[in-house]
Amino acid sequence: MAPGKIQTPIALDAMGGDNAPDSVIRGAEMALIRHPGIKFLIFGNEPQILPMLKSRPALKAASEIVHTSHIIGSEDKPSIAVRRGRSSSMWLAIESVKEGRACAVVSAGNTGALMAISKLVLRTLPGVSRPAIAALFPTLRGECVMLDLGANVESDAQDLYRFAIMGDAFARAVLGLSRPRIGLLNVGSEELKGRTEVKEAAMLLKDSRLSLNFHGFIEGNDIAAGTVDVVVTDGFSGNIALKTAEGAARLIRTYLRDAFNSSPVAKVGGALAMGALKNVKDKLDDRKRNGAMFLGLAGIAVKSHGGADAYSFCNAVSVAVELVAHHINTRIMDEIGHIPAAKTSIKPETTEEGI
Amino acid sequence: MAPGKIQTPIALDAMGGDNAPDSVIRGAEMALIRHPGIKFLIFGNEPQILPMLKSRPALKAASEIVHTSHIIGSEDKPSIAVRRGRSSSMWLAIESVKEGRACAVVSAGNTGALMAISKLVLRTLPGVSRPAIAALFPTLRGECVMLDLGANVESDAQDLYRFAIMGDAFARAVLGLSRPRIGLLNVGSEELKGRTEVKEAAMLLKDSRLSLNFHGFIEGNDIAAGTVDVVVTDGFSGNIALKTAEGAARLIRTYLRDAFNSSPVAKVGGALAMGALKNVKDKLDDRKRNGAMFLGLAGIAVKSHGGADAYSFCNAVSVAVELVAHHINTRIMDEIGHIPAAKTSIKPETTEEGI
Repeated sequence: MAPGKIQTPIALDAMGGDNAPDSVIRGAEMALIRHPGIKFLIFGNEPQILPMLKSRPALKAASEIVHTSHIIGSEDKPSIAVRRGRSSSMWLAIESVKEGRACAVVSAGNTGALMAISKLVLRTLPGVSRPAIAALFPTLRGECVMLDLGANVESDAQDLYRFAIMGDAFARAVLGLSRPRIGLLNVGSEELKGRTEVKEAAMLLKDSRLSLNFHGFIEGNDIAAGTVDVVVTDGFSGNIALKTAEGAARLIRTYLRDAFNSSPVAKVGGALAMGALKNVKDKLDDRKRNGAMFLGLAGIAVKSHGGADAYSFCNAVSVAVELVAHHINTRIMDEIGHIPAAKTSIKPETTEEGI
Repeated sequence: MAPGKIQTPIALDAMGGDNAPDSVIRGAEMALIRHPGIKFLIFGNEPQILPMLKSRPALKAASEIVHTSHIIGSEDKPSIAVRRGRSSSMWLAIESVKEGRACAVVSAGNTGALMAISKLVLRTLPGVSRPAIAALFPTLRGECVMLDLGANVESDAQDLYRFAIMGDAFARAVLGLSRPRIGLLNVGSEELKGRTEVKEAAMLLKDSRLSLNFHGFIEGNDIAAGTVDVVVTDGFSGNIALKTAEGAARLIRTYLRDAFNSSPVAKVGGALAMGALKNVKDKLDDRKRNGAMFLGLAGIAVKSHGGADAYSFCNAVSVAVELVAHHINTRIMDEIGHIPAAKTSIKPETTEEGI
């Protein structure tokens, strides 16, 4: 992407996340080095933020601070955040996207609140009734996009069809693929298997006149195998799959750490292999893939992990930059506009939660 | 368990699985050493099986062969297997449990066919409308039971409630726990989160007068963390979680193998740490945990992995032995009999497939 293209600032919720505002400001500084020319609208507590900018003249020159002392807490219920959060750093940052003062918002704050406020303020794209959370997952072939990761606990065939279109646009933008392979997560690869909505979504994708590269059904083990570039599923299964894989990775890391500490010889072995093992650690480093996008909203909103450090937050900013530079929403609208009889009804809310 | 207690033979489908009958016969031989005194009813092609028994006098003495040349293929549709499989080794083995000639059946054959035929021949336990597939999963604290792993693509609150009861009995029998902690898999641990049926199941479990140790909701990462001993979920999410974790483990193994081959120094390191790494491999060895039970049937049916080798098949036989010795179905019936207004209606079939 050509960074010079992004003229409008990126809005940062400086107060969201466990390490805010420190990790946000330091992450923004890193992002500025990676994407020279970008600008920031920083929402948060000015007396806390300003001293941090003083020692960072380049970042200070690229940033404008919008002061607010109101913060949405990580434990606040989304319904409460929606009712009482209008002067919070998160809300104001989202609103700046709505008003065109920013091209995207990045926040490491409360996922449920971020989704609820984003839906309320930004609204969904025409033809989309449910936004989805999309993020990257490591695979044997590189990386894949998975969605939905928890914006909705239930999804019908039309939702899954739109998730496929949105995931396709995301994979083109962030992974730079020209024809991403799309798979529907199921309990078997045969046509007769699975839930009704998944089977119906497969028919929609097969019969679609859009230029989607639909692979068919995939199973859980296909995610890390890299069988497809875009894994489409409902938010319940997607959230469980993502977190189960994280748990399995943590289990194996613990086993390995214990193994290398189990004897002096093993310790020496571990020390000799340290460089190579660091590569493995890097490949599995979640921080590299930080930055989940809320796809389907009429505005770009990127969720950073709540525990993000500066490097991690910088990567979330990069996701926003890529999505802006690649006009993700124009791509999505182009495709969704071609669906005959697009469903535009707004369904009742089933969840307010995310990853 | 006291092996001498099992007087009735265990039925083996000698023709099911990729390595049948070889792995079945060699696995049975291993199981006989592990559980002296057990007997086998071996269903399959006698001209193939008999020569293998000739060189194994102890196994020969403990076994009776029931000849059939009909085999259900690994690709056969369950509906076809049910209609045309009546003289197959799988069907006859299941039937022998129904008729009391065997106390349990173990098969490495086609999961969908095994479930469909087992349901038809054995029927479900009173008060259970949907059987579930249960198996063990490695955790930071040891092992947990997870169910359903794919017998049903959809489950309502009453189903999930019964899965909890059945999983509890399984954990007591196979893991030897006195009060297994039970968790409901969800997308968040707060009470308001998740699908309606999951929230309703939580209420049933909380209000239950049964002596269940209900922990509450858990998330995907809690599975491998060992937060609970019994993970209860629907067959769609359970199947996806299990296979996603397997895929993640395979990804990490590949990364590690590549890392240890990446340089001469790393190779030496790997060689020095080999003993310790073998321990990790052993802990993650799926073969150790082979043997998924079809819980909720009026008879014990254990599914071995299709690709099982002899050691793996032997472990599936061990699962059957434990379940028989611990009177798993009596335990389940005791608990389910205490549910007020037990639901006994048979629901329409939504899937015939398993793991």
